[in-house]
Amino acid sequence: MGKGNGAPVVPPPDNHQLQAVVEFELQSKCAEGWNLRVNGRTLESTNPIRTITDGIEWDKSSGKSFISLALGDPAACGSHMRVPDAAVTSLVEVVRNCEHNGYAVSSGLPDCRRAVADHLSEKLPFQLSEQDVIMTAGCNQALQVCLDVLAFDGCNILVPRPGFPIYETYCKFLGVESRGYSLLQEQDWEIDLDQLVELADSNTAAVIVANPGNPCGSVYSYHHVAQIARVAEKLRIPIIADEVYADMAFGGRKFVPMAEFSLVAPVLTVGAVSKRWLAPGWRLGWIAVCDPHHILTKAKVMEGIQKVMQIKLGPSTLVQGAFANLLRNTPKSFYDNSLRLLEEGAELCYQRIRTIPGLDCPSKPQGSMFMMVRINPAVLKGIKDDVEFSSALVKEESVLVLPGSAFKLANWFRILFALPLSEMTEAWDRIEAFCNSRYKASISYTNGTLNCTS
Amino acid sequence: MGKGNGAPVVPPPDNHQLQAVVEFELQSKCAEGWNLRVNGRTLESTNPIRTITDGIEWDKSSGKSFISLALGDPAACGSHMRVPDAAVTSLVEVVRNCEHNGYAVSSGLPDCRRAVADHLSEKLPFQLSEQDVIMTAGCNQALQVCLDVLAFDGCNILVPRPGFPIYETYCKFLGVESRGYSLLQEQDWEIDLDQLVELADSNTAAVIVANPGNPCGSVYSYHHVAQIARVAEKLRIPIIADEVYADMAFGGRKFVPMAEFSLVAPVLTVGAVSKRWLAPGWRLGWIAVCDPHHILTKAKVMEGIQKVMQIKLGPSTLVQGAFANLLRNTPKSFYDNSLRLLEEGAELCYQRIRTIPGLDCPSKPQGSMFMMVRINPAVLKGIKDDVEFSSALVKEESVLVLPGSAFKLANWFRILFALPLSEMTEAWDRIEAFCNSRYKASISYTNGTLNCTS
Ligand SMILES: Cc1ncc(COP(=O)(O)O)c(C=O)c1O
Ligand SMILES: Cc1ncc(COP(=O)(O)O)c(C=O)c1O
Repeated sequence: MGKGNGAPVVPPPDNHQLQAVVEFELQSKCAEGWNLRVNGRTLESTNPIRTITDGIEWDKSSGKSFISLALGDPAACGSHMRVPDAAVTSLVEVVRNCEHNGYAVSSGLPDCRRAVADHLSEKLPFQLSEQDVIMTAGCNQALQVCLDVLAFDGCNILVPRPGFPIYETYCKFLGVESRGYSLLQEQDWEIDLDQLVELADSNTAAVIVANPGNPCGSVYSYHHVAQIARVAEKLRIPIIADEVYADMAFGGRKFVPMAEFSLVAPVLTVGAVSKRWLAPGWRLGWIAVCDPHHILTKAKVMEGIQKVMQIKLGPSTLVQGAFANLLRNTPKSFYDNSLRLLEEGAELCYQRIRTIPGLDCPSKPQGSMFMMVRINPAVLKGIKDDVEFSSALVKEESVLVLPGSAFKLANWFRILFALPLSEMTEAWDRIEAFCNSRYKASISYTNGTLNCTS
Repeated sequence: MGKGNGAPVVPPPDNHQLQAVVEFELQSKCAEGWNLRVNGRTLESTNPIRTITDGIEWDKSSGKSFISLALGDPAACGSHMRVPDAAVTSLVEVVRNCEHNGYAVSSGLPDCRRAVADHLSEKLPFQLSEQDVIMTAGCNQALQVCLDVLAFDGCNILVPRPGFPIYETYCKFLGVESRGYSLLQEQDWEIDLDQLVELADSNTAAVIVANPGNPCGSVYSYHHVAQIARVAEKLRIPIIADEVYADMAFGGRKFVPMAEFSLVAPVLTVGAVSKRWLAPGWRLGWIAVCDPHHILTKAKVMEGIQKVMQIKLGPSTLVQGAFANLLRNTPKSFYDNSLRLLEEGAELCYQRIRTIPGLDCPSKPQGSMFMMVRINPAVLKGIKDDVEFSSALVKEESVLVLPGSAFKLANWFRILFALPLSEMTEAWDRIEAFCNSRYKASISYTNGTLNCTS
C-alpha cells in the first residue's frame, strides 16, 4: 500500500454532520491484541512445486537463457505444443454468443457432461451417462472434491511415492493422514502391491492411482491395471484414478483406464483438458463416477460430490460451453502429432541421460510429459543431494528441474520432456557440462557401471 | 450407465496371454463390505439456494411461462442486462492470441491483480498494490479461502441473518461454528451492533459484513460502516467485507467500502466480476487485503491465503487476461445504465408489494439486486409459512421466489429485481392474483393496516 504510507488519511464523510458522531482513533496501533490465530493447517500445507516455481531466482547476468523443465505446463512449451484450433474457434464462438456468462448448474452444463461421458465411454466396456459426470475446475478440484467426500475423520488415504504432491498436501489441509506406497523404479514404476496391502487398514478411505504417471512417465499395462483393481477389491477400498494424462501413451504402450475394471472395484476417474488438450489455464476438469455395481451410489458418494460442488462451484461456464465442440472438431492428427512430439522428446532425454556421468534412468518413459532422472551424488563433487543439484543447476546453468524430494523421492529429479527438441538439446548440453565439471575423475564410469579406481 | 446394464461385460485384454493371469470375478457383488464412510460433513453442508434452484419443478401444463425471481444471475435476466461490450472484445482477443491457455501463478496474473488494486483504490484513502490482491474463482472462492485461513479449530464466525447462506454452509463444511447476528428490518437492515458485541467472544475469528446486501438490498451509510469498524476494533476481530455488489447502490445512497476504515480494523475485501459486470459464469473474483497497520500480515494471513491458493488454484487464466481491458474499456454509461435498470426494477417491485394483501416491505431497497418481502400468513388462506408460499406459488403461477428460510428469516421471501420491467410486471400480476385468491375476506386491509372484522 502506497498512498497512505502508514500515516492515517481520513476521507471526508459523505455527510459532514456525521463527522462529530464518528470519532476516529486513527493513531497507529499495534498488531497485538487482535484475535488472529490463523488456521495452522493452512500454513503447513505447502504445494512444493508451486512454492519452488512461484519463487524461483536465477543469475540473469550469466547471459544464458532460462530453460524450465519444471512445471507441467504444456501451454508454456512454445508454439509446437498449442491447443487444437477447435479450442480457439469453439471458445470464441461461446464468448461472442454471450449465452455462457451466467452461472452453470453446480454439477456442470449437461452438454459438457455428456461430451465427457461419451468421450470416456469410447474406451470402456459400459456407457457412462451425463449423470455419472461432474464438471470441476481442473483435475485439481476434481481430486480435492473426491477427497472432501471420501475422507472421513480419522481415515487414511493411500498415495503413490513418488507422486504428484497435491495428494499429500491436500490430505494435510483436510487434517487426514496420507500413506505413501512405493512405485518400483526397476519395474517401470509399477505399484508395489504387497506394500499397498500392508499399508491399508480398516480406516483406509481410498487409494489414489496415477496412470499415466506424473512424475515417472509410466503407463501401466492391462495386466497391472487389472491387478490394482483386484487388490482394491480384496481390501474393499475405492480407487481414485488420476487420469489427467489419459491417452498420453507412446512407444507401443496403450493407456488402459482404471474404470475398465470398475466391475471389480468402484472407480472415481478424474481428468481435465489441461494436458491432452494443452489448456491447463482453462481450469476445466471432471469426475466420472464409474460404479456399475452402485457401490459408491449406495454409500452416497455421488450425493456428497454434488453437495460439495454446490458449495465450491465449478469451472467457468464459458469453457464448459466450448468443450463439446472442442472435442468434436479436434482431428486425430492433433493427438497423433502431440504424441509424436512427446515420444521424440522422451527419447532425446533418455538417450542424453545415458551418456551423462552421475545420472541415469532405469525406466524409459512410456507416457505423460514427465520422467524421473536418478542422481548419483557419490560421483558429483560438491553435490550432496537432489535439492543441491537443482539449485546449483539453476544458478549456474539457468536450467530449472524439480528436485525429487518434491515428490518424496530423494536424489532424483523430475523433468518435463514436452519442450521443442532444440531447447531440450540446449538444456541437456548445459546439464552435461554441469555434471562433467563435477564428475570425480578418480571414478571411472563405463557403459553405465561405476568403477572406483582410487 | 447403460451399455453394461448390470451384466458384466468383459473386454478382451490387449494381450490375450494375459487373460489366464487376470482371473476376473465379475459376478454381481453387493455394496456391503466396502470401506465407504462418506465424510458426514459434506452430506450435511447444503447450499439451500442451489438445492432449490438446481432441482425446481413446476407445472408446465399450466401454459404459463416460467419466471424465476430466484437465482442472482444477472446474465440470465435477458438482453437488457448483458456484459459490457468490452467483456466480449477483450476476452475474444485473449482467446485468439493463445497466450493465456497455460497456468497462471497461484496468486493471479500480475496485470489482473494490479487492475483490481487500482480499481478498488479509486474509492479508498490509500493505494492498494498488486501485492495486496489475490485472484480467486469468483467471490465464492474468495470467501472460502478467507475462512480457510482465519478459521482456527474451535473458533466461531459471525455472519448476518438474513444472509447469503454460503457463509453458514461453508462454516459447517469446515466444522466451525457460525453465529448469526440480526439485521434490523425496520432500520434499513442495519446490523444490530449490540447483539454483535454480545455474540462475540475470545474465539471469534472474524465477522462477515455484506454490503450492499444480499438478500436485503441494503446499502449502509458512511456512519453505519464506520460504526461497524469501531465495533470490530473494540472486539479485536478482523472483518471479511463481502462487497460482491460494490457500487451497486442507487436512490441517493452511495456505496462506502468497508476498507475505508481499515485503519480502524483490518479488512479482507472480497469481490468479483459476477454482479457489476454481469458475468458470474466467468468465475473471476478477488481478495484484497486492506491492512494498512499490517495486523493481518504480522499474523501471516496473507501467507496463509497464498498457500491455500497454491493448493486450490484460482480462476481460469483466460478471464484473468481479459479483466484489465474489460475495466479500461467499459464506459461510465454501462454502469449508469445498469443502475438505472436496477433502480427502476426495485421501484416497480416496491410499489407493487404495497398494494398486495398479505405482503409488505418495510425497507425500500437501496442497492444490490435483491430485496426481501414479508409475508403475513395470518391473512393468506392455506399458507402456513414462506416455504409453503414459495412452493404453492411456483406450482400454481410458475413464478419462483426463494423462501426466506434459505436465508434464515422465516415468513419472508427474496426476489431479484433485475429482470425486464415487463417480465416483473407479469410476475407481480401473478403474485397479486395468487395472494388475492387466498386473502381472507373476513379481514379487511386498508392502506397497509390490518383490520380483523370477524
Ligand atoms: C498427476 C496430476 N494430477 C492432477 C493435476 C492437476 O491438473 P489440473 O491442472 O487440471 O488441475 C496434475 C497437474 O500437473 C497432475 O500432474
Ligand atoms: C453476497 C454474495 N456473496 C458472494 C456471492 C458469490 O459470488 P460469485 O458468483 O462471484 O462466487 C454471491 C452470489 O450471489 C452473493 O450474493
